[in-house]
Parts: sequence; structure tokens; C-alpha cells
Amino acid sequence: MESVLDYIKQNRDRFEEDLFELLRIPSISTDPNHKDDINKAADYIADNLKNAGIDHAEVKPTTGNPVVYAEHCKAGSDKPTVLIYGHYDVQPSDPDELWETPAFEPTVRDGKVYARGASDDKGQVYIHVNSVISWLKSGEELPVNVKFLIEGEEEIGSPSLVPFVQENKDLLSCDMVMVSDTTMYDEDQPSITYGLRGLSYMEVYVDGPNRDLHSGAYGGAVQNPLNALCTMIAKLKNEHGEIQIPGFYDKVEQLTPEEREQYRELPYDEQAYKDAIGVDEVFGEKGYSTLERASARPTLDVNGIWGGYQGEGSKTVLPAKAGAKISMRLVPNQDQDEVADLFKKYMHDIAPPGVKVHVEKHHGGTPVKVPLDFEGLQAAADALESVYNVKPLFTREGGSIPIVANFENILGVNTILMGMGLRSDAIHSPNEKFTLKDYHRGIEASARFFKNLAEMNA
Amino acid sequence: MESVLDYIKQNRDRFEEDLFELLRIPSISTDPNHKDDINKAADYIADNLKNAGIDHAEVKPTTGNPVVYAEHCKAGSDKPTVLIYGHYDVQPSDPDELWETPAFEPTVRDGKVYARGASDDKGQVYIHVNSVISWLKSGEELPVNVKFLIEGEEEIGSPSLVPFVQENKDLLSCDMVMVSDTTMYDEDQPSITYGLRGLSYMEVYVDGPNRDLHSGAYGGAVQNPLNALCTMIAKLKNEHGEIQIPGFYDKVEQLTPEEREQYRELPYDEQAYKDAIGVDEVFGEKGYSTLERASARPTLDVNGIWGGYQGEGSKTVLPAKAGAKISMRLVPNQDQDEVADLFKKYMHDIAPPGVKVHVEKHHGGTPVKVPLDFEGLQAAADALESVYNVKPLFTREGGSIPIVANFENILGVNTILMGMGLRSDAIHSPNEKFTLKDYHRGIEASARFFKNLAEMNA
Repeated sequence: MESVLDYIKQNRDRFEEDLFELLRIPSISTDPNHKDDINKAADYIADNLKNAGIDHAEVKPTTGNPVVYAEHCKAGSDKPTVLIYGHYDVQPSDPDELWETPAFEPTVRDGKVYARGASDDKGQVYIHVNSVISWLKSGEELPVNVKFLIEGEEEIGSPSLVPFVQENKDLLSCDMVMVSDTTMYDEDQPSITYGLRGLSYMEVYVDGPNRDLHSGAYGGAVQNPLNALCTMIAKLKNEHGEIQIPGFYDKVEQLTPEEREQYRELPYDEQAYKDAIGVDEVFGEKGYSTLERASARPTLDVNGIWGGYQGEGSKTVLPAKAGAKISMRLVPNQDQDEVADLFKKYMHDIAPPGVKVHVEKHHGGTPVKVPLDFEGLQAAADALESVYNVKPLFTREGGSIPIVANFENILGVNTILMGMGLRSDAIHSPNEKFTLKDYHRGIEASARFFKNLAEMNA
Repeated sequence: MESVLDYIKQNRDRFEEDLFELLRIPSISTDPNHKDDINKAADYIADNLKNAGIDHAEVKPTTGNPVVYAEHCKAGSDKPTVLIYGHYDVQPSDPDELWETPAFEPTVRDGKVYARGASDDKGQVYIHVNSVISWLKSGEELPVNVKFLIEGEEEIGSPSLVPFVQENKDLLSCDMVMVSDTTMYDEDQPSITYGLRGLSYMEVYVDGPNRDLHSGAYGGAVQNPLNALCTMIAKLKNEHGEIQIPGFYDKVEQLTPEEREQYRELPYDEQAYKDAIGVDEVFGEKGYSTLERASARPTLDVNGIWGGYQGEGSKTVLPAKAGAKISMRLVPNQDQDEVADLFKKYMHDIAPPGVKVHVEKHHGGTPVKVPLDFEGLQAAADALESVYNVKPLFTREGGSIPIVANFENILGVNTILMGMGLRSDAIHSPNEKFTLKDYHRGIEASARFFKNLAEMNA
């Protein structure tokens, strides 16, 4: 693959220019005024691939924003097929006044390109686009079969993607999915995410009297929905941070001694962790380290609460109702619907007298853990090590990427999460950036990944 | 006093017209655009009294809206002096579209006058104004000394009144205060309020991380300020509704067996009570009846709570901070500042690890209980019985009227709370009303009260 690597070295400027052109398109999915930009971004990516000689590339309609679908499947049926997933839509740029340079005028400062979407996810998508282009343009045969699925609704929850994948199972059939939409463990320390938590997101309503009452006239006489709600929330966890919902931990896959050893070996400075978020102490489930609690253990957090008077000063109201949003992060093998049912039942069981409790489930996500011996992970790890000269870390993340579980369920394949961003990239915030050195290292790593994978299947 | 009673009978239309004229003045204290109306209302009352031949009446400036001060002290120093307190300012009328007839165009329907301020408090103030006028115009000598203090800031918390009373202690010196600004126990069932609860109103802030965190990335690793706040609030009361703050009940004056017997004798229908506010069950401190809990026992209510995401749908945020407004109603002999200090200490003691807690005190109020053998209460009760032909009930109210404690502290006197409104009067709401029959019965009761009081001191 020498000529591929040469091509990559010689085309650094062009790779940057091609990315910057994409970054100039304000393809904001949440704002209907940017519908044309959405289409423009999709067309741009498809055209780039077509111009490089890819076998097939098109912009395909969905029930919402279109997806870019492309494929180059000439390696033969004995070679694995990789589906590269990413998204071309971006978050809004506001507040614009906090950007040092305009969000949609990519600007390079200190080796980083600043623009909305630089890291999330256009820059990371273009790693794989340019890796494939480099194989195509260098004259060498792409050693595996490659498909692209680049969607335009990730920032609004991918409403059209699952139906699209379900309806196009054959088209999208593959042996694995490659996603670059996360971060490295640290600068110059690449990592591969092999686990994601799931989610059950609930909303709880507590109804008391039929109207707000005067707390002088009725205080002491009737149940206060806010006191009731707080009392119920307090019963969700004990003082050791352990969740008290009966059955909640029943299906939790426990950490093995080997996994706990891996966690202990991760470079981690608890004082720096605390300083970064401004807390004096960390807190969580007894018996587990901070990193374990943040990624390999299930948890429960109140995400929002409301009721009564929230303004300045005082108002002596005994509110008619109260509510809270409460979500639980899940780990393998917890089921989001089962957990939601356990939560609902418990909340009804512990509801104090004098109020009515109603619980609804919002969206959720299924926890994911890719087997560490999966060849795709190993091929990606070897590629990263070749480029960074350091062994990548295998980590689990605390958040959820629901589409990964969907690929597993619908297409029956594992996903490789090879994030090339940094935690400091300020995604979703002003001055989003992406380190150009990692952009180029990522392109090389992606190119080597294809080669490694082909050799494993030689 | 036959000629006084005759005068009252013969001047019903005039009393109504004089009140309606006052009700036409939109003396809204919270809106600076109504400053002229405030002055107009004060002038109107002073002029009414002057025209009737009162010894002295004037509009006196304060640091805020003026007060109407008047006196007629010709009964001799061996006769008691009654200070009549009330307010001429009113709540805003919005939402105006919900009024059947305009808020400042008093309209009589079915024996009730509908207008903003009809019951709260212009109608009740004019009971005493017309009672005194009747004594003056009938040619009989007013048998006690009477002073008026009618303020214009009650609906905005009476900010200028306490300083005014403190600076005018001699002018306002009296043997008792008469206030008609509350309600009767029920239609045709007059009552006198002899107890009011006090108040300590607190605000609690719980600070966690230095910014909102992603609940996936950090959930389980750090203390969530919302979970922490709910846990703390849950520890404020136990499942029997008993307040858990150490020392909270230490100074509480317990109900005597006689007082509890009085409570049991009050006409009360718990099913009707529950139906009126739409709850299936009442709830509160174990061992006390609903009426006792609502007026003679201290309590604690969350009046408002906030934190995290309160919008539609879901947001996976682990919020940086949370807050709540929590107030305690106090009974004799609890001290609002002592209770505030106990609350603060307890909240700090039970704060879980990983968050910082800050507690502030808002306004408060001192609980009041007038001795049932106080002659003023008896004189008022006898007067009401003469007019209504039913024994008035002596009741305690759950709310606070801070000025009553101030009269006790500054002037050293008891207050008679002879409310002539009804709970259904919709004060502070659209279609506020006042029953004209009670207006006229109130004028007669007030006139008889002066006479009864004089005879007790004959």
C-alpha cells in the first residue's frame, strides 16, 4: 500500500481544502431554513466520492433528510465488507458572538481548524472519505468492500435512519460498521470504544390538589406534590449511591477481574478529573472506581425537576403539581423497556398518600459491548498503533449512541468506534475545532485499517 | 344607641353608593401608573370621614404610598381606644377578560357587589368607616375613642407600614386593633380569628459541578445536585408528616384538651373539604385533625423547586445546580429566626458528599394568639351574635398576617380579626365580590362593638 500512503502524504492540502469546503455549508438539521444546505452537503460528499472513481455514490431520499449512500465492493465476496457510518448535519452555531471566527468560515489556528462540524462529524467523516479516495486514486485496489452511509439527521435524533436501515437491509449488508464520531482517550493517545451504555429516560408527574393552594391555609392539611416527589426521588438511591429499584441490578453484567484490571491500568488522575469539573469530591456507587462508575455501571440521574414558584423572592404556594425527568444509564444486559417497567412500578409503589403519580417513558437506548476479540477492533487497533506509535486503549463510554445498537439488531454486526476527536473539541459549543494532525493521522489509520482487515481474511 | 341603628337602617343605599365610588378608583399598588389613583382613594376616604364630622382626618405621607389617619377620641381617657386598620390598595385586575363586568365598575348581581377590592379590603374598611359615620351623624356620642390607619401598600407587603407605626407610636397608641380583612367561617356563620401562624421562608441552593455535564459521560461519577436536593428535602419530614429538624418542635405551644375540644366542635365536613380541592385523601402530621394541622400545628412545605432541563422531551443533562423554596408555618411560641437557624444547620448537616449547600432566609412572620378572654374579642363576638343571631366561632387561621404581630410588638396591643368576607369572594382573582347583606350586617356589628366595649368599661 506504499502508493496509497504516498498519495495521502502528497494530498494533505487537498484533503484540508475538501473538508473546509464541506465545513462552509451550514447544514444545520434542526433549522428548516437550512434545508437547501442539507441537500448541498449531501450532494457535495456524493460528488467527491464519484469524482474519485468510486463504483457507486448517490444521495438517497428518506422520510426526512437524505442520506449519502456509496459503495465500492470489488474486493470479492471472500473479503469483508465495511459499512462506514457518519453524519453530515451539524448543530446550530449560536451563540454566534462567542465564536472567535465565524462558525461557517473554517479558520486554521495553531494546527486546528475551527468551524461548526469540524470534529462532529464532518472532519471525522472525511477521514474515511479521503482514505477511500486515496485507495481509489493511488491506483491500488481497495482490499475490502466498502459502503458509506452518511446521514443528515444525527443531531436531531436520527428519526429517519432506523426505518431506512430496516428497509435497506440488503443494500447495507456488511460484516462490520466503522464509526468515527467519538474522541480519543487523550492527545496522542488513540483509543477504541468497545462499550456504550444504554438509556431509559423517564418523566414523572405528581398531581395533588386541583389548583395551587395557599400554603398558609392548606399547609399541613394535604400532601404537597413537591415534597412527595422529592421523597420518592430520595428513595431511588441509597446513601451509597446504590439504586433501590427492586430488580434493577438483576441482569447487570458484572465486571470481570480482568476488566477491572484494565480499568486500573488506564491513565487517570482523579485530582485533575475533579479540578476539571470543579468538585471537591466524586461520588457514586460504593465499591467501584470513578471510571468504572462512569462507564461500566448503571446509574440514575435526575435530569430536570420543576414545580411551584421559581421566580425571585417568595410566594407561599402549595403547588398543584410537580414533575421530574429521570434517566437511567444501562449496561449489558439490561433491557431499556424492562428497566422502564421496574421504574414505573417502584414509583407507584412508593407514592405517598394524597397524590397521584403518572410515569412516562421517553426515548431509550440499548447498551452495547463489542467482544474484544472481534477482528475489526484488532484491525483498527493495529492501524492506530502504526500511525501513533502507541498502543490504543480499549475503553467503554458512559453515554449512548443508539444507532450502534440498531446496527447490531438490524444488520447483525458489530461496530468499531474509532474516535479521532478530542474531549476539548467543543462540539455543540462555540469554537468547535478539530486537530488537523489527527485528521491526517486518521486518514492514514483508516487506509491501514482496510489493509489490516484484508490481511486477516487473506 | 337606637338612633345609630336607625341611621344605619335608613342609609343603606348611601353606604352602598359611597363604597361603590371608592371601588371605582383603580388603586392598584403594584403598578406605578396608578399612583394618582392611590392618592385619590386615600383622599376619598379622608374626605368621607371629614364630611361626617370626625374630629380629625388626614392623608399622611410615608416612605411609600400614603396612609389615611383619622381619629375621634372624645369618649374620655377612661374609655378604650380602638385602632381600626385596613387597606385601600387593591390587587391588579388582570386577566380582565375573565371578569363578567369590568373590575372597576362595581355591579350588583344577586345581592353581591362585584368589583376589585369589594371584599379585599375596601368593602370591609367601609364597614367601620360607615359605623363611625353612623355614630357621628346620628347625634349620639361615639362611646369609645376611635383611630383609623388605612394603608395603601398591603398588597405589596406593607413595606412602609412598620417604619410608620414605629415612628408614630404615640399617635397610634391604643388599647386594641380591629381588622376586618379575613373571612367568616361560612355564610351566616360569623367568626373571629384569634390565632395566626408565623412563617420562616427559606431558599436552598445546591451547587455541584462548575457546569452542566453530560449525564452519559459523568452519570454515576459525581453527585447530582438534583438528586442531592431531593434527598435533603425528603429528610425534612418523615412518613408521618413529622418535621425532622432537630429542635423544631421544642418551643411549640401544644394544643390544650379544651382547644382540641373546640376544634372538634367546629362544623366541618372532610369529604366536602377534599372535594373542594380535588384530593382523594388529606395528609399531614399524625395524631392531629385536618383543621388542627391547617392552623394550630407548624408545618413545612416546598413552595418551589427547579434545576436541569424542564422543557419538552428529554435532555441528558447532569445539572450544575438546583434550588428550592421551602417555607415553614410556625405556631406560638416558635421564633422565625430561631427556626430559620435550625433549618440552615440541619440542611448543612444532611448535605450529601460532593455538593455545596447554601441557605438563605426570605421574609418571615411571627405567630399570634390572642387570649380568648381578651375583652375586645368578647365585645366583637357579642356584637356579631346580636346581628347574626348565632354565636360566632373562634378560629385560628393557617396563614400569616405579619402586621398583627407588629401591632403586638410595637404598640403592645392585641388585634381583633373580625372578617366579614367569604372564602368564595375570589379575592386576588377575577369577579371578586362582597355580599351586601354582610356589608350592612358588618356596619351594625361594628357599631354595636363600640357600644359593647364602652359598657365593659363603664
